[in-house]
Amino acid sequence: MLVELKQKVFEANLELPKYNLVKFTWSNVSAVDRDKELIVIKPSGLDYNTMTYKDMVVVDYKGNVLEGELNPTSDTMTHIVLYKAFPEIGGIVHTHLPWATIWAQAGMNVPALGTTHVDTFYGEVPCARFLTIEEIESAYEENTGRVIVETLQERGIKPLEIPAILLKGHGPFTWGKTPEDAVMNSVVLEEVCRMNYYAKAINPLSKELPQDILDKHYLRKHGKNAYYGQNISII
Amino acid sequence: MLVELKQKVFEANLELPKYNLVKFTWSNVSAVDRDKELIVIKPSGLDYNTMTYKDMVVVDYKGNVLEGELNPTSDTMTHIVLYKAFPEIGGIVHTHLPWATIWAQAGMNVPALGTTHVDTFYGEVPCARFLTIEEIESAYEENTGRVIVETLQERGIKPLEIPAILLKGHGPFTWGKTPEDAVMNSVVLEEVCRMNYYAKAINPLSKELPQDILDKHYLRKHGKNAYYGQNISII
Amino acid sequence: MLVELKQKVFEANLELPKYNLVKFTWSNVSAVDRDKELIVIKPSGLDYNTMTYKDMVVVDYKGNVLEGELNPTSDTMTHIVLYKAFPEIGGIVHTHLPWATIWAQAGMNVPALGTTHVDTFYGEVPCARFLTIEEIESAYEENTGRVIVETLQERGIKPLEIPAILLKGHGPFTWGKTPEDAVMNSVVLEEVCRMNYYAKAINPLSKELPQDILDKHYLRKHGKNAYYGQNISII
Amino acid sequence: MLVELKQKVFEANLELPKYNLVKFTWSNVSAVDRDKELIVIKPSGLDYNTMTYKDMVVVDYKGNVLEGELNPTSDTMTHIVLYKAFPEIGGIVHTHLPWATIWAQAGMNVPALGTTHVDTFYGEVPCARFLTIEEIESAYEENTGRVIVETLQERGIKPLEIPAILLKGHGPFTWGKTPEDAVMNSVVLEEVCRMNYYAKAINPLSKELPQDILDKHYLRKHGKNAYYGQNISII
Repeated sequence: MLVELKQKVFEANLELPKYNLVKFTWSNVSAVDRDKELIVIKPSGLDYNTMTYKDMVVVDYKGNVLEGELNPTSDTMTHIVLYKAFPEIGGIVHTHLPWATIWAQAGMNVPALGTTHVDTFYGEVPCARFLTIEEIESAYEENTGRVIVETLQERGIKPLEIPAILLKGHGPFTWGKTPEDAVMNSVVLEEVCRMNYYAKAINPLSKELPQDILDKHYLRKHGKNAYYGQNISII
Repeated sequence: MLVELKQKVFEANLELPKYNLVKFTWSNVSAVDRDKELIVIKPSGLDYNTMTYKDMVVVDYKGNVLEGELNPTSDTMTHIVLYKAFPEIGGIVHTHLPWATIWAQAGMNVPALGTTHVDTFYGEVPCARFLTIEEIESAYEENTGRVIVETLQERGIKPLEIPAILLKGHGPFTWGKTPEDAVMNSVVLEEVCRMNYYAKAINPLSKELPQDILDKHYLRKHGKNAYYGQNISII
Repeated sequence: MLVELKQKVFEANLELPKYNLVKFTWSNVSAVDRDKELIVIKPSGLDYNTMTYKDMVVVDYKGNVLEGELNPTSDTMTHIVLYKAFPEIGGIVHTHLPWATIWAQAGMNVPALGTTHVDTFYGEVPCARFLTIEEIESAYEENTGRVIVETLQERGIKPLEIPAILLKGHGPFTWGKTPEDAVMNSVVLEEVCRMNYYAKAINPLSKELPQDILDKHYLRKHGKNAYYGQNISII
Repeated sequence: MLVELKQKVFEANLELPKYNLVKFTWSNVSAVDRDKELIVIKPSGLDYNTMTYKDMVVVDYKGNVLEGELNPTSDTMTHIVLYKAFPEIGGIVHTHLPWATIWAQAGMNVPALGTTHVDTFYGEVPCARFLTIEEIESAYEENTGRVIVETLQERGIKPLEIPAILLKGHGPFTWGKTPEDAVMNSVVLEEVCRMNYYAKAINPLSKELPQDILDKHYLRKHGKNAYYGQNISII
């Protein structure tokens, strides 16, 4: 069942340890099959060294396990809420990568200080609020997803234009059209969080990019007039 | 004598260099056999590259060497005091890992700023006081252990709920039910010390997690209602 | 066509990933053939792992592609402007290396705080201004090159004496007599940006080197009285 | 001539790249034969990857090259001054390791904030003054050595008790009874400079270790009552 997608999700999960960015089992990647309304997701707390593509778990939009002998990641319901709210995305990544987690712990949005940032994220990356006691006690993981959706809606963010968010006191979620894109967005977010920290530290008055440079860089890589790379695709 | 435990202690000692976290011989791991009241511990100042499991030293609860041709680590008496005071622990690790040592040198408790912290440590990790001149001059290593025990007791900390401490001006000790757990707790402590430093640096007003999120994350991984991972164990 | 130069440019492009300094495809190296007035340059957004020397693109001084099936880097016009303005240089490198990018995002010149800096850069490395809206909207990449040239002229900098510049909010360009030199200058700039950040952080009053030490170190490695290394060359 | 010592110096030079601490050719290690009053030292600017033990250069106490086809490091006269002033040392290392260089650029002594420091250095590591214009213009490298000797004498430091110094605006020199010890002291200095920076950054009031803890740790590893390690030697 969904062998190809399992293989993709498995490989995307292994991308993160390759970048030396993941400690232990602290990340999970998923992908969705939009036609079948099924999600393939990493098992909870599984060792990357012994994991195979067959360990990937298939769940439906309610979180029921349809295939797989292992428990899916405890964050599964968060992934599901995002897939249902954002029909344009195909893959999701959650990590505790240190720099993104540092900004999340500081409870701050990541400002767009440089072209490295706006080549991928079309504006500042938001940090979502803490969940309330009620949200924590009722359905923590599902409500985590709802807070992400709420944050994007309140700030008027299109999911594929800023494919990342920080959860206050926790860590980042990123997404993309595919699980590979979602992983790449995690790696870029990590680098941007690191560089923006130090830029602010050297010069606390470091300013966000002027809007016209932000537009220029984002739009030379994305959208219908993009001219970066070899395979210019129209979003 | 205790061949299996020697093998475990040997392997746990080698875990730390694997994470690229240890310089030279600056760490030691031990384990205890509760029935026999014997401790297996790394020799002092021995090169990790040539060390074998047979080099592990067996000592009794008074620090007498019962087996082994090498001197046990000079911190042996600290380990012994902890094993005697905390009957629930099975392994101990001492390192000079840089981020934990940095917090120790700063003489500060490590606040619980994020879920990465509270997935492992159920609250802030304490920093113990300096030893007094008398404590240093009489039985330094033994008194180091006593100060650790005193610190946990004064703060009402259960050893397995916060399995780590910083020694002011020195470095960390961690422990766990097994030597592997103790090593893992060292690695998590190191990561948490790094992230919490930067979170405070970005935003000096970064706050400790609200108690309900702290509870939620700690308890979804630990205790009788845990639902993280594949082998949910009851502590 | 230009097989030897393609091979050199290809190898210089691969030098940067070797230093673990480049993420994804975020850098480009070029070289010039002064007699033929032709430039060999990396294709846009190409994976370093599968790239071969045959993928290098040949362009003329107007940016026309004379050979190569791939699009040259989107920064090609910036390279061309520099080659035309600085006849003494033979290779150019653009990267998003983190420390140089951090200083660029902070919008600050890199002061000459140590001999590591002045062994390569004969004074502070300048940070250029933002482009104006008009410059962005008309010919962004070409105008980027013009701003670099303008900055060096205004500050009276000879290109080979300070072979590097930061673009505000973007990242560094470095150059040299050869593409290999340009890569080496990128690596030194990165190291210097890192060290100078921390030196200022420990001691905000850290001062630039006295002029006589600056002269001594630069001139014992460069110029007609140099006495460092094995092949003392006269610039 | 001095084949064994050349081999030792060669290997000690290669120790530093092994720790991933050296960029390009930015370090040099030497050793002395006290009986013959000869020094074996690394050639200037030579690539570590192709260097062999035969490339090591033999010089006398005046800096004359007695054997070797390559120029010795341009810092040779500094090494010689130190060997002549400190009869108890057998090896010297000069590097631009980043953290030690950062403290040198900040022009600050490295305070003894932790036991990691005082296990090797019996007190704060001094930062020497800038050379005067006259000292720079007459015999720069020789005068650099003299400033090191002057600094230790003024502060009453025994070379083997604090086997390291920072040169303001430049970088560290370390030494030891053997070239291997000198390399180890460089690595420890680097780690200590890193940790002490961050400890001061977390808590600007971080204090130097109390004298009695400093004594305890230094003396349990060094001197006639040492009880650390397997081969307790009397200095």
